[in-house]
Amino acid sequence: MEKKKNIMDYDTVTLDDENSAVVIIDQTKLPARTEIISLKTAQEIWDAIYLLQVRGAPAIGVAAAYGIYVLAKGIETEDFDTFYAEFKKQKEYLDSSRPTAVNLSWALNRMEQVVLNNKEKSVAEIKQLLKEESVEIQEEDIRVCKAIGEYGLTLVKPGDGILTHCNAGKLATSKYGTATAPIYLGQERGYQFRVFADETRPLLQGARLTAFELQSSGVDVTLICDNMSATVMKNGWVDAVFVGCDRVAANGDTANKIGTSVVAAVAKLYNVPVYIAAPTSTIDMNTPTGAEIKIEQRKPEEVTEMWYKERMAPEGVKVFNPAFDVTDHELIAGIVTEFGIARPPYEESFKEIFARKEAAAKK
Amino acid sequence: MEKKKNIMDYDTVTLDDENSAVVIIDQTKLPARTEIISLKTAQEIWDAIYLLQVRGAPAIGVAAAYGIYVLAKGIETEDFDTFYAEFKKQKEYLDSSRPTAVNLSWALNRMEQVVLNNKEKSVAEIKQLLKEESVEIQEEDIRVCKAIGEYGLTLVKPGDGILTHCNAGKLATSKYGTATAPIYLGQERGYQFRVFADETRPLLQGARLTAFELQSSGVDVTLICDNMSATVMKNGWVDAVFVGCDRVAANGDTANKIGTSVVAAVAKLYNVPVYIAAPTSTIDMNTPTGAEIKIEQRKPEEVTEMWYKERMAPEGVKVFNPAFDVTDHELIAGIVTEFGIARPPYEESFKEIFARKEAAAKK
Repeated sequence: MEKKKNIMDYDTVTLDDENSAVVIIDQTKLPARTEIISLKTAQEIWDAIYLLQVRGAPAIGVAAAYGIYVLAKGIETEDFDTFYAEFKKQKEYLDSSRPTAVNLSWALNRMEQVVLNNKEKSVAEIKQLLKEESVEIQEEDIRVCKAIGEYGLTLVKPGDGILTHCNAGKLATSKYGTATAPIYLGQERGYQFRVFADETRPLLQGARLTAFELQSSGVDVTLICDNMSATVMKNGWVDAVFVGCDRVAANGDTANKIGTSVVAAVAKLYNVPVYIAAPTSTIDMNTPTGAEIKIEQRKPEEVTEMWYKERMAPEGVKVFNPAFDVTDHELIAGIVTEFGIARPPYEESFKEIFARKEAAAKK
Repeated sequence: MEKKKNIMDYDTVTLDDENSAVVIIDQTKLPARTEIISLKTAQEIWDAIYLLQVRGAPAIGVAAAYGIYVLAKGIETEDFDTFYAEFKKQKEYLDSSRPTAVNLSWALNRMEQVVLNNKEKSVAEIKQLLKEESVEIQEEDIRVCKAIGEYGLTLVKPGDGILTHCNAGKLATSKYGTATAPIYLGQERGYQFRVFADETRPLLQGARLTAFELQSSGVDVTLICDNMSATVMKNGWVDAVFVGCDRVAANGDTANKIGTSVVAAVAKLYNVPVYIAAPTSTIDMNTPTGAEIKIEQRKPEEVTEMWYKERMAPEGVKVFNPAFDVTDHELIAGIVTEFGIARPPYEESFKEIFARKEAAAKK
């Protein structure tokens, strides 16, 4: 375990030089401490995902891919059947760490497919192919975020004020983040933005993670409470809102962290465009509208207690604590994917986006 | 110091039976503990106001009036000049406890006027008149809140959902509160409302005080984070928003706790009417619009640290922390005073309200 000053010296998830450990920033310690931890055993990898030491759908997928590679590399046999039996056992164990995380199963299944597609090869060769696949999963994540950043940059100009909510940043992905991709990519090109980070109650991902990673990267970031968005917009300080998403319905309705739709309502009043950064993997054409998206209710203690279990509210008070909300497509100016910017009407626009995706896959 | 279960067993501020102490609920201990404290010395009264053990403009005024009465009662002399010199000294000391609280000076000046208007009377008689004036200040506060409640009740019906922000409740006044007056008055008449209390970051007055006093009173209250207002309104659970105010400009623009204008923006989107509960003393006809209201900036630690000094955000991060915001009059459906409900255009409507106030004063 090492400690360093600047989080931007580290990748959110990476493989160590000996290919023997997954190395992550322990996000449960942020922002108080930057601790980099090496995960070598199945138990350590499982715990890191379960305990949210690594979080954010893309980052979880990458951690799982590297994790199963590291474990596969340690299987000491030349016999395929023995190797695959052990691989399968480890894969299922990792997959149980966070059952609702779609990217976790997706990455692990993709790794398993490499094994099954190469039965005829030696175990040593399969291990090498697994490494290549895990690296490719991470590189794809970086390419997707970077492409979102490129398209996002066409929507803002240097010096603009950008408001974001929750954390759809570098810490949720391999690099760039999704909502933050235009900010970081712009920074590489010498643009400076003025960013406002909503603290994002109840779990304060905006304060703990977004403000932290932007500040560490030298971005001009100002932390605000969620209820200050109207003031900063009324003051004319915000030119665009960029947020991430958990799921986008076919009509453009977008589920994201609770409070996103409040930002969108305020932005509408002050004529500030709201953009959703959405890898195409989050656009679910089988969900017609936001009304079909089930919203998880979380435990009241997230609202009534803060860290260290000190109560902020009366004992036994009733609490409504939805994890997400759905922002109506009518409040969204554009949905920025790695294959371009979808615009209303979204059903039509998404068809073009997916056509481009298919064409790219065929190349 | 006593401890009891239910805060509604106590007045926010009262005089003890022997007229020798101001008795208050120590609001700095809520919601964890209900502690009733007796303030007997000038130092104790000063501290209680300074430390926000008693807070809310009307409640501070009442505490100051009872406080100066208790101190005056203890002045042992029959000579008017000696009495007045000591009274003046105590008055100026209490007045220094919270210089920005308008009601503090207002109540103390009113008490001093009783002394000055009755020079010819005995000190014992003056002391009795001071008691009557302090009781009258509290009774006026109760009458104003009750009248706001009566008018407010015409805007809702039994069973309605009401959302409120910050604390403009019983704990900020002698009884009923301002924004909560329709709720408590309705409750006396057997109405049940479903109330949603915004927690109100950064200082959580909604969670710590509003949710607490409503719950203690048996009102159906649900605590939400400030960023959940859109969800509860979209769900159709809110029929009206009732909030208090710090200052109302002549055109109806209203300064109130930070986040009020976010609630108003969301309410506009979902067609929920926003009502401001405003004693006429808070309507400032010398302030033409909200643009002329100066907004106090408070220290970043309110946002970056919670109770017990645990950081929630990176060290050194820039923070924007306005104490109030201004809600545009166009977002306000009505301003409820003790002399009726002002409606747009507010300049005109306020003239009628103040004409009624003058007529009542002449009676």
